[in-house]
Amino acid sequence: MLENVESLMHRYVEEADAYALSLYEKVPRGKRLRAKLILRIAGENAEAERLAAIVELIHAASLLHDDVIDEAMTRRGIPSINATHDSKSAVMLGDILYSKAYSELSRFAPEIIRRISDAVVQLSAGELLDVEYAKVLQPDEAKYFDMIYKKTAVLIEATAASAAALAGKPTQSFARYGKNLGLAFQIIDDVLDITADAQTLGKPAMADFREGKTTLPYIYLFEALDEAGRERLRGLYRKSLTEEEAAWLKEKMRESGAVMQSITLAQQLGRQALDAIAHERNPALERVITDMIEREF
Amino acid sequence: MLENVESLMHRYVEEADAYALSLYEKVPRGKRLRAKLILRIAGENAEAERLAAIVELIHAASLLHDDVIDEAMTRRGIPSINATHDSKSAVMLGDILYSKAYSELSRFAPEIIRRISDAVVQLSAGELLDVEYAKVLQPDEAKYFDMIYKKTAVLIEATAASAAALAGKPTQSFARYGKNLGLAFQIIDDVLDITADAQTLGKPAMADFREGKTTLPYIYLFEALDEAGRERLRGLYRKSLTEEEAAWLKEKMRESGAVMQSITLAQQLGRQALDAIAHERNPALERVITDMIEREF
Repeated sequence: MLENVESLMHRYVEEADAYALSLYEKVPRGKRLRAKLILRIAGENAEAERLAAIVELIHAASLLHDDVIDEAMTRRGIPSINATHDSKSAVMLGDILYSKAYSELSRFAPEIIRRISDAVVQLSAGELLDVEYAKVLQPDEAKYFDMIYKKTAVLIEATAASAAALAGKPTQSFARYGKNLGLAFQIIDDVLDITADAQTLGKPAMADFREGKTTLPYIYLFEALDEAGRERLRGLYRKSLTEEEAAWLKEKMRESGAVMQSITLAQQLGRQALDAIAHERNPALERVITDMIEREF
Repeated sequence: MLENVESLMHRYVEEADAYALSLYEKVPRGKRLRAKLILRIAGENAEAERLAAIVELIHAASLLHDDVIDEAMTRRGIPSINATHDSKSAVMLGDILYSKAYSELSRFAPEIIRRISDAVVQLSAGELLDVEYAKVLQPDEAKYFDMIYKKTAVLIEATAASAAALAGKPTQSFARYGKNLGLAFQIIDDVLDITADAQTLGKPAMADFREGKTTLPYIYLFEALDEAGRERLRGLYRKSLTEEEAAWLKEKMRESGAVMQSITLAQQLGRQALDAIAHERNPALERVITDMIEREF
């Protein structure tokens, strides 16, 4: 049960530090995608709930540090800890969540400890890439995929495989499921940054490009534009857009098919995720994918 | 051998991320106290070297995050990463070193994984305390000891106990040795901030009080002063001192015996560390303590 996971997370943070708990309670809760995956793969038992709490603490810690690094002022529509408090508090709370998660993780089998901790190495390396790649426009698909793999997919991949290991299910299939789910999830998130409004997103719309992120739709758009269009696109990179500029960008995104092409790729990845676990006949896991790829954009 | 530990640390960071390695190479090396302890307790073998590299990466990560939190511009006399690059780079590099260390730690026995990761929880909680306590003058010995235990002693305690576990030696004795060594070490560091000059320290002298740290000599001084003296001391808290103010402070430190009292306590703790491992008859470990407490101040 997800409530058990929430209670465990609360207890873990409380055990780590009383003041950390008061800060932690101000962190907006996410959708707990990783926890849900674990419970759906390994079943609703005490061990799976513990692993789910650990992985969600790791995910929360990575977002706290991410917000410091991106200087993000909001997270899930409400002010981030580094905005309401300061970046120091966000760094420290992140460190406490990470270390407590590792401490609890030490009770699991070596295979699981290794999978999760190796994923965090890549996740952290992804933070570095993020900053590196945000310096110039990078219309480079290979770099984009390397980045979203590290920043999003790698922890979901390790999570799904670890849950499978707990339940004695085939880890490779679940790793493949998690990886493709993570990639598709991030592409859709990047599409929504362009197609959704600020209220739906809980953050300013079209923020990625302004923050220096050349996400997949921008890469496809760059490829589709003529030299004059590319020049205009370069001129908008890392800029606060006027209404007219934002309208031009959205129009070009539609006209060039860049958004649709991105959605199509996310759907393909979603189907690969479904294929990987087809033999499992687990409708709850399949629904995670279909809910994601069959939504409105 | 310490060179083997350095090579391992280099290799671990390289495996984690190529760009991280280029940043890591700019981080000034410390005295590697924790690595030396491990090799002296567990012997110079491959397993001990791996544990030493892991613990030193954890220590380096904690210092990187510490410098972000303290906004420290130098570390060991040379500009810190958050000064030469930015605090983001320091956060990210710290995350990579931490996660790679945990990933390598996963190959050790559960007891060792738990000792080290539990220590990092307390170390991280110590960072929070540091910021909390630096807001007002805290002439409170209990808070001071809680803080230096978490910020310094806890990892040395876990390190010594883990090295003992590796070598099949009594972990409790070595934990007590490490804890008392860590406490004594930090008190002496805090004394040197007052008695040594900037060149010896590799950082500005008398920086602690200006940064809001009420270290042990200040606590003893506060206790010794009359109300007028305390008022003056309060007035200097978190301030850049004039030459005259610094001279007054040093004079009062000497006159009140606050510095001497702190050194005496560090020496007592050092002797408790020696007692804890007396049965081991290990001159190298004894020398760590005697070198520390018999120095000039």
